[in-house]
Amino acid sequence: MTDPLRLGIAGLGTVGAGVVKIVRQKANLLAARTGRPVVITAVSARSRDKDRGVNLSQYAWEDDPVALAKRDDVDVFVELMGGADGPAKAATQAAIAAGKDVVTANKAMLAIHGQELAEAAEAAGRVIRFEAAVAGGIPVIKALTESLAGNQVERVMGVMNGTCNYILTRMENAGLPYDEVFEEANQLGYLEADPTLDVGGIDAAHKLALLASVAYGTKVAFDAVEIEGIERITIEDIEQAADMGYRIKLLGVAQMTGRGLEQRMSPCLVPASSPLGQLEGGTNMVVLEGDHVGQIVLRGAGAGEGPTASAVMSDVLDIARNIRVPTFGQPATTLSAAKPAKSAAPAPYYLRMTLHDKPGALAKIATALGEAGVSVDRMRQYGHEESTAPVLIVTHKTTRDALDSAIRSFAATGVLASDPVAIRIETV
Amino acid sequence: MTDPLRLGIAGLGTVGAGVVKIVRQKANLLAARTGRPVVITAVSARSRDKDRGVNLSQYAWEDDPVALAKRDDVDVFVELMGGADGPAKAATQAAIAAGKDVVTANKAMLAIHGQELAEAAEAAGRVIRFEAAVAGGIPVIKALTESLAGNQVERVMGVMNGTCNYILTRMENAGLPYDEVFEEANQLGYLEADPTLDVGGIDAAHKLALLASVAYGTKVAFDAVEIEGIERITIEDIEQAADMGYRIKLLGVAQMTGRGLEQRMSPCLVPASSPLGQLEGGTNMVVLEGDHVGQIVLRGAGAGEGPTASAVMSDVLDIARNIRVPTFGQPATTLSAAKPAKSAAPAPYYLRMTLHDKPGALAKIATALGEAGVSVDRMRQYGHEESTAPVLIVTHKTTRDALDSAIRSFAATGVLASDPVAIRIETV
Repeated sequence: MTDPLRLGIAGLGTVGAGVVKIVRQKANLLAARTGRPVVITAVSARSRDKDRGVNLSQYAWEDDPVALAKRDDVDVFVELMGGADGPAKAATQAAIAAGKDVVTANKAMLAIHGQELAEAAEAAGRVIRFEAAVAGGIPVIKALTESLAGNQVERVMGVMNGTCNYILTRMENAGLPYDEVFEEANQLGYLEADPTLDVGGIDAAHKLALLASVAYGTKVAFDAVEIEGIERITIEDIEQAADMGYRIKLLGVAQMTGRGLEQRMSPCLVPASSPLGQLEGGTNMVVLEGDHVGQIVLRGAGAGEGPTASAVMSDVLDIARNIRVPTFGQPATTLSAAKPAKSAAPAPYYLRMTLHDKPGALAKIATALGEAGVSVDRMRQYGHEESTAPVLIVTHKTTRDALDSAIRSFAATGVLASDPVAIRIETV
Repeated sequence: MTDPLRLGIAGLGTVGAGVVKIVRQKANLLAARTGRPVVITAVSARSRDKDRGVNLSQYAWEDDPVALAKRDDVDVFVELMGGADGPAKAATQAAIAAGKDVVTANKAMLAIHGQELAEAAEAAGRVIRFEAAVAGGIPVIKALTESLAGNQVERVMGVMNGTCNYILTRMENAGLPYDEVFEEANQLGYLEADPTLDVGGIDAAHKLALLASVAYGTKVAFDAVEIEGIERITIEDIEQAADMGYRIKLLGVAQMTGRGLEQRMSPCLVPASSPLGQLEGGTNMVVLEGDHVGQIVLRGAGAGEGPTASAVMSDVLDIARNIRVPTFGQPATTLSAAKPAKSAAPAPYYLRMTLHDKPGALAKIATALGEAGVSVDRMRQYGHEESTAPVLIVTHKTTRDALDSAIRSFAATGVLASDPVAIRIETV
């Protein structure tokens, strides 16, 4: 047995408490697996008095996470506070400057400052690891950086926001409208303080940007992610999609194309019979496609105390075993700046709109599509009341640019009674 | 850049040729990811002249894999010959004695000699890695030994023989009997030279024994795996199961119970709507359950050139990065000898038999079940011709011992017209 690996934990919310429990309950197991004891020496959080269901009396307490990060008796700084900037970033920088390794679950911080932090850590001979930041307990960062290291990655896809998947599957299963299920999720405490992070797709986009970096050896480019949330998805969309054998998911896709790196986080139709289509509730799924390995699907809990703490411990135990893979799989200074590809690869699209019930209305829409070079696979006009008619169109493969051009020209026809909704149909 | 990592590859079948292709085509990518060049210096196979679709002229040729394993210009001995004993074992031992690390895809060798080989390697300060031996391209060994290292594993399950899954799903989809689909698989080249390895469950049992070792920190105990093949599964079983919402899979389960370690590889009924139930054709799936992470499902190609070579490269690149996890996740000398639990954990069972069409026949079977303490959930007698009647029973949870005792007493009733088939219904 060598010297113990000493952890300083900043942030004692659900995940922090979960990490404390694992380290306390599994001391023998962890030592047997890594060949050295893993211990906690110091902790930090906003309130010292809160009952977290774990005994913290053996650990030194620091009110200031920066002070914790600098302590001589800490080897690994475990950052579980969250927030892109502020104390999390300051303490991470302090830890690196003091020669500590860092394990974090902070997707926002790494999506925005990951390059700078990884370069600083690697210049100091330290590592920053972040398995817990993406898809909770699913070991996707390790799968990409280590298991698939012999592959050129062709595509990475994922359903990585459990709240959105809960809302979408609940709408479908209960036949409830978005607003009602959103409120329900809110009552259940599933939503972030700023719900836009969830339903606006931002949280999931942070994760996608990190995945794209490790998949393609490129600098994290969160700003280049095309983001669309689930706020405009209606129960009608979900039912129409189901009727055609699809389900709607908030799906992230990162794909290197001849035109550059595409990163999009948006609602997509996927076949109901595919692994992604079958995903229910808060579960996450990541699909990795490599040129040799083919398609690998990983499924598990994307959040929660146990799964996220398990992922944090995976990184901690790697460090205990002296597994020191660079943050993004290769040295940060060797990551390339990917050219962002604005226009997505061609795909079929689902289009829903309501037309004024006038003779020739549907023909005008079909003509506008044809003039934009978008060809129609299926078109349905539904039975209707009043003076408007709901219309559903599935296109053949087209680019988003061509589709947007068609949608803009719909306006000039004068037959639109509502803004069209366009949803990509992703081949999975 | 440090010195190159030099590979000696023994065995140039599909997988060996796949590894050569990756090393040749991806030299820059591999060096960027690991920080050092990865090169092949020498190869060995049975026939030097065979066209393998790769240029081998740059590499030294050895007719004898033992000679290859000892070469001074080899750092990692890549064993892709197969076979539990013979040249594969001799060359692996020679490599270890000569101070080489070993990467192998040889499940049979490790299932039988893994403990001895791992102890020898670790005594010499070397590693044996075997990601490619279990479930092809699915990174399950790394997931268990590294990603889930903070968990007590509760259960490991897997569909890990693509040929069996092909046969079972093909029977169901085409409504064909076992013998016909077996012959079809044979024609397609899906079966091992000795098909019992596949359809008898032995190949999959080798894999399960390796998974159990890394999951529970126990010595590989292949002899303790309860093995039952798919040879007795009929199209009627598959159709009856489907009718009740189940599918039949050759499922491996390793589970640590109060009575010891259960390891079984046998046909099981699983819910048709579960990830395992939805698995079609040659794809593999492994389900890992940890006390913190919950359930993680991994799905991918279980065989074939690309996926298996990808897994071999994962181990090679770990060594290039100086990731040196012991063969079974912790030092081989610290693995415990698990007590094998002969009787499986209770489960519901599916029972199918044919009875002579006499008054009271069904009652006699029901009585025998009751006397053995097996309670019946559902029982059906199917429409029939001639003088026998097919009967289907689903029991409540019971032990295999109680069920076997009931089945033995069926014989004394004199109403059996065929041997009963009993299939476990696994909760997934």
